[in-house]
Amino acid sequence: MNILVINCGSSSLKFQLIDMTTEAVQAKGLCERIGIDGSRIVYTPAGGEKMTIESPMPTHTEAIKLVLDCLTNAEYGVIKSLKEINAVGHRVVHGGEKFASSTIITDEVIKVIEECNELAPLHNPANLIGINVCRELMPGVPMVGVFDTAFHQTMPKKAYLYGLPIKAYTDYKIRRYGFHGTSHSFVSKRVAEFLGKPVEDLKTIVCHLGNGASICAVDGGKSVDTSMGFTPLAGLVMGTRSGDIDPAILEYYANKEGLTLSEVTTVLNKKSGMEGLTGGKSDFRDLEEGYEAGDQACIDAIEVFCYNVARFVGAYAASLNGVDVIAFTAGIGENSGFVRGKICEYLGYLGITIDAEQNSKRGEDIIISTPDSKVTVCVIPTNEELMIARDTKALVEAQ
Amino acid sequence: MNILVINCGSSSLKFQLIDMTTEAVQAKGLCERIGIDGSRIVYTPAGGEKMTIESPMPTHTEAIKLVLDCLTNAEYGVIKSLKEINAVGHRVVHGGEKFASSTIITDEVIKVIEECNELAPLHNPANLIGINVCRELMPGVPMVGVFDTAFHQTMPKKAYLYGLPIKAYTDYKIRRYGFHGTSHSFVSKRVAEFLGKPVEDLKTIVCHLGNGASICAVDGGKSVDTSMGFTPLAGLVMGTRSGDIDPAILEYYANKEGLTLSEVTTVLNKKSGMEGLTGGKSDFRDLEEGYEAGDQACIDAIEVFCYNVARFVGAYAASLNGVDVIAFTAGIGENSGFVRGKICEYLGYLGITIDAEQNSKRGEDIIISTPDSKVTVCVIPTNEELMIARDTKALVEAQ
Repeated sequence: MNILVINCGSSSLKFQLIDMTTEAVQAKGLCERIGIDGSRIVYTPAGGEKMTIESPMPTHTEAIKLVLDCLTNAEYGVIKSLKEINAVGHRVVHGGEKFASSTIITDEVIKVIEECNELAPLHNPANLIGINVCRELMPGVPMVGVFDTAFHQTMPKKAYLYGLPIKAYTDYKIRRYGFHGTSHSFVSKRVAEFLGKPVEDLKTIVCHLGNGASICAVDGGKSVDTSMGFTPLAGLVMGTRSGDIDPAILEYYANKEGLTLSEVTTVLNKKSGMEGLTGGKSDFRDLEEGYEAGDQACIDAIEVFCYNVARFVGAYAASLNGVDVIAFTAGIGENSGFVRGKICEYLGYLGITIDAEQNSKRGEDIIISTPDSKVTVCVIPTNEELMIARDTKALVEAQ
Repeated sequence: MNILVINCGSSSLKFQLIDMTTEAVQAKGLCERIGIDGSRIVYTPAGGEKMTIESPMPTHTEAIKLVLDCLTNAEYGVIKSLKEINAVGHRVVHGGEKFASSTIITDEVIKVIEECNELAPLHNPANLIGINVCRELMPGVPMVGVFDTAFHQTMPKKAYLYGLPIKAYTDYKIRRYGFHGTSHSFVSKRVAEFLGKPVEDLKTIVCHLGNGASICAVDGGKSVDTSMGFTPLAGLVMGTRSGDIDPAILEYYANKEGLTLSEVTTVLNKKSGMEGLTGGKSDFRDLEEGYEAGDQACIDAIEVFCYNVARFVGAYAASLNGVDVIAFTAGIGENSGFVRGKICEYLGYLGITIDAEQNSKRGEDIIISTPDSKVTVCVIPTNEELMIARDTKALVEAQ
């Protein structure tokens, strides 16, 4: 069974074709600048060279047509015809309270996803365009929607309810939803498998640390709390996002800068975090270089980041009343032993000791704590595309 | 040495006269509705009956005159003349980064407090009026300013810096300041004394839980982190305040309700928290009654509150890399064994066990954990007035 995984943004589209017999990626790529001059597709077939093809893509329809052309191309394609695509899995950012798991897409499901658009006005409409174009170009091929929010729908009320006038929740649907759910789900399952323990028996804290970053408390395989909130702005300080701040700061900052509420919210999303603290650096490779060169802004930013992560890990140890496993994932979590080490320095009280040698490795499933550490600390590379493909396969087979 | 402690608000004024030889309160009271029709003073001399005197107080000058009249009254006064007041200690809400400790008030100090007015526009100007009127009415009597923020000035940068564009800090002074410092300072010192241990050796988490609520991580007597932030809105969900929320909620809620940024900030300060969740109840006696009667909104609100506190305690265990003592104080912290019990249920992983019998007591210095609990959990009634008087005495004697 071959599954095409589509992650459709407003002007871009990522894809992977996965052979589910082996879970091997057959081809992957990215369409850029859809609807903008200079659009192009970057395409890499398994075992082949990465290639870039410039081609006009006024809409997502041309982009998806181009993806399908690449996949079936006589020279560099990986399948002979579209008939070899058995199903399509679509990443959808926001499922609100409507979707607690992945779902086969029907006309009815599309209507419900549309009802969630208001909660993710930048992302959900683009996801829907991808779904609609694929349904048009691949009639009869089953489609599945996999939601960033679904995994967190098991959170108890005490974790998702904000201390706001209750109509904020009942009338306006304002609550903690959480994001990165596909990654938190994948990593929490994978780490249990890797350690040879039933996921049902584990209290796990997953640290998804990338340019966007969130932490999730997973109890027996179920999300019970997570750091992102109503939107992906909340929680940890991130590459360009502020994370949690005193909500009274918005008015003060807006008045100082002469900004509207909408403008100050944009500053918090796009000009804050590591980039704001350092005046431009949001990539952790640059930040670590700066740290080692003694750049005070980089030192401060990294200290703030690691301390923020440690505080959330501590908070979620209380949410779970203990922790068995901590798993680091995503760009920073998988690749920066430096950051992992600094975070774990705060956690000695949980009985955590880190093996420096192991922690210097990157990008593979690995235990970085010592054998006598009371909590097992791991690095688990995330794979959201594979998770989407797995969910898609399971739903299609169960039909 | 007799010290008069003054806590001056915009339309109210609380006072205590304390004999520092015994630290006994000689008289205390409250002026209400200053500058408003129907102003009155409530006055209680030690060992006497509480009395209410209605009297016009168009300004704070009349209010303080009335306080001094009561204290020296031939019938119900406690001192013979103003000469028996040796010093005055003033509560000042915001000392910014200017004051890391209490200070003798001089013309220069008043100027610096004025520079902090912008950070606490509702409170500092009222505090300054109290200081100026006292200086006028009691010339030559030393005055001391005791700041709510001062105790937290030992926080490291990683704890006080927000993930915002750096000019927010450098140009606009936006950072975590923290409040309730006088209470956190008092309780962290008192609990060490009560346990017969040097404060320098203890990692303490103080939970100041009242209508306003904050938590403080105290390492060896020094504040290293606290839950309130740039303003007292941040951190825990409180009686009427939201505490931390996703900052993106402000724009969404303002649009839904047709509110300005200033109006939505007011909602977060005055119509949120327990009151918002229950549609009107912010007093924990009412909330607990509702909880026991099965009122779902009260149950949700109390669950949210206790879970929020537990998460912060967990976070600060990471900040401190361990914890020796947890101290509960203020209205809820001192009086609600129910709330303390619910919070501590999350903390078993720290080796905490609670003695239900001890935890049912209220309002006195007491250990509520069992003898074999790995963390000692205490109730320590706070006494901000006494702390202000002690700081005042120490500074005046050192002059």
